[in-house]
Amino acid sequence: MTLLAPLPQFEATAQSVRAVPVAVAMGDGIGPEIMGACLAVLHAGGAALAIEEIELGETVYKEGHSSGIAPATWDVLRRTKLLYKAPITTPQGGGYKSLNVTLRKSLGMFANVRPTGAYAPFVTTKHPGMDVVIVRENEEDLYAGIEHRQTDEVYQCLKLVSRPGTEKIVRYAFEHARRNGRGKVSCFSKDNIMKLTDGLFHQIFDAIAREYPEIETDHWIIDIGAARLASNPGQFDVIVTGNLYGDIISDIAAEIAGSVGLAPSANIGAHGAMFEAIHGSAPLIAGRDVANPSGLLLAGVMMLVHAGQPKVAERVHNAWLRTIEDGVHTADTAPAAGGGTLVGTQGFADAVIARLGQMPRQLAPVHYADAPPVAPQAEPPARVRAEKHTVGIDVFVHWDNHDAAELAALMQPSGAGVLDLTMISNRGVKVWPGGMAETLTTDHWRCRYMACPGVALNPAVLAELQLRLARAGVAFVKTEHLCTFDGVPGFSLSQGQ
Amino acid sequence: MTLLAPLPQFEATAQSVRAVPVAVAMGDGIGPEIMGACLAVLHAGGAALAIEEIELGETVYKEGHSSGIAPATWDVLRRTKLLYKAPITTPQGGGYKSLNVTLRKSLGMFANVRPTGAYAPFVTTKHPGMDVVIVRENEEDLYAGIEHRQTDEVYQCLKLVSRPGTEKIVRYAFEHARRNGRGKVSCFSKDNIMKLTDGLFHQIFDAIAREYPEIETDHWIIDIGAARLASNPGQFDVIVTGNLYGDIISDIAAEIAGSVGLAPSANIGAHGAMFEAIHGSAPLIAGRDVANPSGLLLAGVMMLVHAGQPKVAERVHNAWLRTIEDGVHTADTAPAAGGGTLVGTQGFADAVIARLGQMPRQLAPVHYADAPPVAPQAEPPARVRAEKHTVGIDVFVHWDNHDAAELAALMQPSGAGVLDLTMISNRGVKVWPGGMAETLTTDHWRCRYMACPGVALNPAVLAELQLRLARAGVAFVKTEHLCTFDGVPGFSLSQGQ
Repeated sequence: MTLLAPLPQFEATAQSVRAVPVAVAMGDGIGPEIMGACLAVLHAGGAALAIEEIELGETVYKEGHSSGIAPATWDVLRRTKLLYKAPITTPQGGGYKSLNVTLRKSLGMFANVRPTGAYAPFVTTKHPGMDVVIVRENEEDLYAGIEHRQTDEVYQCLKLVSRPGTEKIVRYAFEHARRNGRGKVSCFSKDNIMKLTDGLFHQIFDAIAREYPEIETDHWIIDIGAARLASNPGQFDVIVTGNLYGDIISDIAAEIAGSVGLAPSANIGAHGAMFEAIHGSAPLIAGRDVANPSGLLLAGVMMLVHAGQPKVAERVHNAWLRTIEDGVHTADTAPAAGGGTLVGTQGFADAVIARLGQMPRQLAPVHYADAPPVAPQAEPPARVRAEKHTVGIDVFVHWDNHDAAELAALMQPSGAGVLDLTMISNRGVKVWPGGMAETLTTDHWRCRYMACPGVALNPAVLAELQLRLARAGVAFVKTEHLCTFDGVPGFSLSQGQ
Repeated sequence: MTLLAPLPQFEATAQSVRAVPVAVAMGDGIGPEIMGACLAVLHAGGAALAIEEIELGETVYKEGHSSGIAPATWDVLRRTKLLYKAPITTPQGGGYKSLNVTLRKSLGMFANVRPTGAYAPFVTTKHPGMDVVIVRENEEDLYAGIEHRQTDEVYQCLKLVSRPGTEKIVRYAFEHARRNGRGKVSCFSKDNIMKLTDGLFHQIFDAIAREYPEIETDHWIIDIGAARLASNPGQFDVIVTGNLYGDIISDIAAEIAGSVGLAPSANIGAHGAMFEAIHGSAPLIAGRDVANPSGLLLAGVMMLVHAGQPKVAERVHNAWLRTIEDGVHTADTAPAAGGGTLVGTQGFADAVIARLGQMPRQLAPVHYADAPPVAPQAEPPARVRAEKHTVGIDVFVHWDNHDAAELAALMQPSGAGVLDLTMISNRGVKVWPGGMAETLTTDHWRCRYMACPGVALNPAVLAELQLRLARAGVAFVKTEHLCTFDGVPGFSLSQGQ
């Protein structure tokens, strides 16, 4: 918390480059000491940063701010748009909201970026060839949190995938690959099952890939991809994927690499970006000069690339690799074979500083492209309008009986010559007309009406259908309009249809 | 295909037990030879099976049946309710449907059961302690395949979780644990995010767990659980989870075990059960007596337990373990250290037969409980009715502007003193009243109306709201009624609400 002293020098060193404003949170537990060590290394490496220290975390929570951030701090973040954050402690007890969720939503940080590497033989690992970056979509998918209980038996969560959201994350992944000297981007989806939502993700991936001809690409079905990542991570480079899949595979990658203490994370958005280690504040070892600053330091390297100082980032990263190679380590990464030089937090930072300008000899040196910083678009991309026609409606009904034919007889008359009941499904399996006796039915029925020949549908016609259904005593609980877009149906068929 | 000869003996051996009718598909490629080997072992072990051979797969596809099964074959499956299936070949080219999806849907097979074990040091593996069974829900979740494109920008897939579907799969997992001598069942879900759908799964798991006090239980958030499974599978025993999560983690388990050729799989339902190896028909090595019959043999062991012959299952399984221990192996599982006895498909079966009655000495012997077979309930469980009240509606609107306040002004009057517009969100984030300028908005808006004080809602009132909206020119695309069940809201709040 007493870090203000070195800051003037910090800026003086980097006179040739315009200093980039950065909000720095010293954090809780081991936070202040590892942040101090990291800033010293970045400074010595030539980073041009104009630091504004902010308070986040335990003290702020205890002052009564339920998200761990004081209102005035937002002004700093809105100004710097860049946050370098040490781990914080969320106090025990209820009523405290996740600081990271609040920051992510408020600053529109749509991308979570997680590089995970192995540094064999210098750091023990089961997966020596691993060097993978996972780029996870952060805002949509099932995590939009839109859930409805519709009947006694059936609960629903909406999975939303948007074109602009997908374009942003996929483009970010390719830009990240280009600027970080990476040659391949893999897409993970389940588009063999979810042909519309995951199909959109895959299709946008293929389209944007064509703009990056120097980058190799492939696509993996999520189950097979996750299995290969778990067994053979060395075959992957950059992976871009949706929110849920990314949540799962980024935890797998961090866990199997066996070096959680070395892993950085970035959250990137149009209105701000945040860089941190993935580990916690480890209060038990706080203040003892034993914590490993590497995760936070590598987050600082990511921040420098993001902020347009790739050569400084390269210098610091290569010196860090050389330090690891030379066997200098904190207690958490003592080599299995023994040997090396055990140092403390500050000693580790000094060792990296002493190697600035040196390159690793066994580990591959990093190279960051000297490209201008590519800020994510703050403005949404232009909308592509399709010719849209409403051609039917799915009406979901809460109905306690099990006989689909009886339900069909109840529903059919309300079509009234305008709409024709064409299909009923239960949990996605067609049960009318012509279902199978073995299908277990719940109390949640999807009844599909299509427009009768020559009828043009509009929202009023579909509201009138619902009025007739209500009068017939049908307890409908939701509707989904069926539309075509440029003549292509925007709805799936049921299994068996 | 010439297996009918031994069948009479097969039944004669087992005079003391009533022979269980089983449909057997010899399959394609290596199918006939490994199935022949497996039946010989099961027979010698004392299995009482009344076999009816059926044709499935390549020949049937080529005869013009697009699902790989002829109509008359259904009669056999409906009678036996038990299918022992060798791998089949789906011909190249379009128009062929997945036989397994057809069988699963038609026979209502709600559970996919995948045991994965390591047999170190006898079979090379990175995870020596692994012995995990994954019980995956097979019918609902996102894989119900209900998708809608709703606007130019936004696509949706419904995730459905039902109480009876969840009760069936969770109960099956506990019954499987009890009958297979397993001491722990873990539940994987993401109920910290999806509090209604995954919350239901977790809550039903906890409730059913109380009926099995001898079985230890725990719950893992899917991302952390998958990561632990990938890094340390030895800590898990039986895992029960939803369709998508189960799809991902069962592939991870099979892949990291490093012994795909040894892994069996079962699909269990009220109207039928199917047992098979997880590997394919390997046409390149067909007819050469080199294929490993172990995966299919262990599937046969699962079938015997399922069919109420646990002691025969135990005898065969322990003889197989002893065979592996004795270094008898087919070419695919040659020990890394060399040595052992290389045999062919038939030779391997002979070696297992020669060891019937023997127990493994280093590997843990298996024990199957001599409990009566517990068939899954064919009838759906009794419905629990809650006191349900409709209290509002979410109306989703396709709107091309970006100003939420303007949309609110357009929507509000249609409430007409009956319903009050209380919130608008975009991709789950509240944007009105009081949203943040930084939130990127798509053309897909969720507008929440709640009943005005003293107003009782019903479907007709909600249809009338839509009529007014249609007249006001609002292009709504879907609705979700908001209900309380026994006083508990059946809908989530938006982020920021």
